[in-house]
Amino acid sequence: MTTLMFEKYHGLGNDFILLDNRHSHEPLLTSEQAQQICDRNFGVGADGVIFLLPGQDDSDYTMRIFNSDGSEPEMCGNGIRCLAQFAAQLDGQEQVTYRIHTLAGVITPERQGDGRVKVNMGEPRLLAGQIPTTLKAESEKVVDVPLTVGDRTWQVTTVSMGNPHCIVFVDDVASVPLEQLGPEFEHHAQFPQRINTEFIEVTQGNYVKMRVWERGAGATLACGTGACASVVAGVLTGRCDPCTTVELPGGNLEIDWSTGGVVYMTGPASFVFSGTLNL
Amino acid sequence: MTTLMFEKYHGLGNDFILLDNRHSHEPLLTSEQAQQICDRNFGVGADGVIFLLPGQDDSDYTMRIFNSDGSEPEMCGNGIRCLAQFAAQLDGQEQVTYRIHTLAGVITPERQGDGRVKVNMGEPRLLAGQIPTTLKAESEKVVDVPLTVGDRTWQVTTVSMGNPHCIVFVDDVASVPLEQLGPEFEHHAQFPQRINTEFIEVTQGNYVKMRVWERGAGATLACGTGACASVVAGVLTGRCDPCTTVELPGGNLEIDWSTGGVVYMTGPASFVFSGTLNL
Repeated sequence: MTTLMFEKYHGLGNDFILLDNRHSHEPLLTSEQAQQICDRNFGVGADGVIFLLPGQDDSDYTMRIFNSDGSEPEMCGNGIRCLAQFAAQLDGQEQVTYRIHTLAGVITPERQGDGRVKVNMGEPRLLAGQIPTTLKAESEKVVDVPLTVGDRTWQVTTVSMGNPHCIVFVDDVASVPLEQLGPEFEHHAQFPQRINTEFIEVTQGNYVKMRVWERGAGATLACGTGACASVVAGVLTGRCDPCTTVELPGGNLEIDWSTGGVVYMTGPASFVFSGTLNL
Repeated sequence: MTTLMFEKYHGLGNDFILLDNRHSHEPLLTSEQAQQICDRNFGVGADGVIFLLPGQDDSDYTMRIFNSDGSEPEMCGNGIRCLAQFAAQLDGQEQVTYRIHTLAGVITPERQGDGRVKVNMGEPRLLAGQIPTTLKAESEKVVDVPLTVGDRTWQVTTVSMGNPHCIVFVDDVASVPLEQLGPEFEHHAQFPQRINTEFIEVTQGNYVKMRVWERGAGATLACGTGACASVVAGVLTGRCDPCTTVELPGGNLEIDWSTGGVVYMTGPASFVFSGTLNL
């Protein structure tokens, strides 16, 4: 029987089991074990398990994630903020920026003085073929284009942040029937790889409220790439400033697209508890 | 900042945070703190927090529970099995039977050699006025009585195990539309205090499959009082032996009503992990 020590963190309610895997390049758990440990009734309970592995090339560390369904995503914006805080706590030092090797390339989370972490989320991709969507020709952008879902036509903007997003600006986000519309958008014929959908209410030019339906996960408390995509869509359609606060059900994210290139996301990462279990 | 050590257990997937509260008659947490800690995204995550307090009168210990919604139930069959294992592990001894003071009186969980725990769940109450239900006169039993729910009439039997149950025997429990029928039974006009509903498929006289809709909680993995009530109903209607295995989504319970008086329930209680958090 092996004893496994872990720490639990969350970023806006997106919660992870963090494992100190610095002594080996192999994850301490298989994806099947991660699935069991993520079970919220029979296990510890989490959205995923994150492994802090040794760095590669000139990176400080490598991050790998197994989601609660056993899949391995390239990257996770909420997760890498938790990883940066976990690494700093293990290192016992005030290192500000870490170079983290991920399956989506090297990401450099930057710890802020207030406990939040700023992450370079990369450049948005805007062409229909990059989303992908058939709403326009492959090399055209999809900005405020009509899309009929059910018995209503919506003006939608699509943005890829490595994963596909459809952004819909509405007057009152609280009244959106998310559980009904989310699946209808997700499985719409014009999104061949399905889609994440963000409903956005602009309350000021630099403050928006968001509700999200995540592809494969449904209504979630927070989606970092969705917040980035939504501000990009807000700038493209003239509704938002490049520096905008996005209010999600799990808390707030600050999105900064003032470069016009890469998008920066700043948000919290909170320690919840430490634990020990037997494998 | 106070450090709180805890252990996580589950009984058939009904999961609890166990606290060593032996040094004080006051629970270590308020119900508000328990609610926060039970949150599955921002806290530890559990169906409830169970406190192991000093005994009263001639009991070994006192059990109190705060559910994840902050309410305090009188007793919990899955929870008291976990408490017995937790107490034995803290005591570091092989004590078999504990006398536990609860808000529902003294309960005596008996630890079995195989890691399961047997609990005296008390006597069923069978009169319509005790359920309560208006399906019969107050002093009559409700055994295979027709009840119309939606566009269909079901034969139902009602049993109180301290809480009200409506048992419905069906040919194929897997095909029952639980999410639709559960609320219709729960809020039926003939159950003035609402009702827990068990759909039961008898596969052999001593083995049944159960799916449950719990009053206020919806579809759950396991309901100990519901398993007891279902075997009582099976005996009353000639469908079950007094000693019957009940297969629930979270695992199996052995129910024994061979006394014709009190009902015994035997089931597992499993340690998951130990943890530490800061209050």
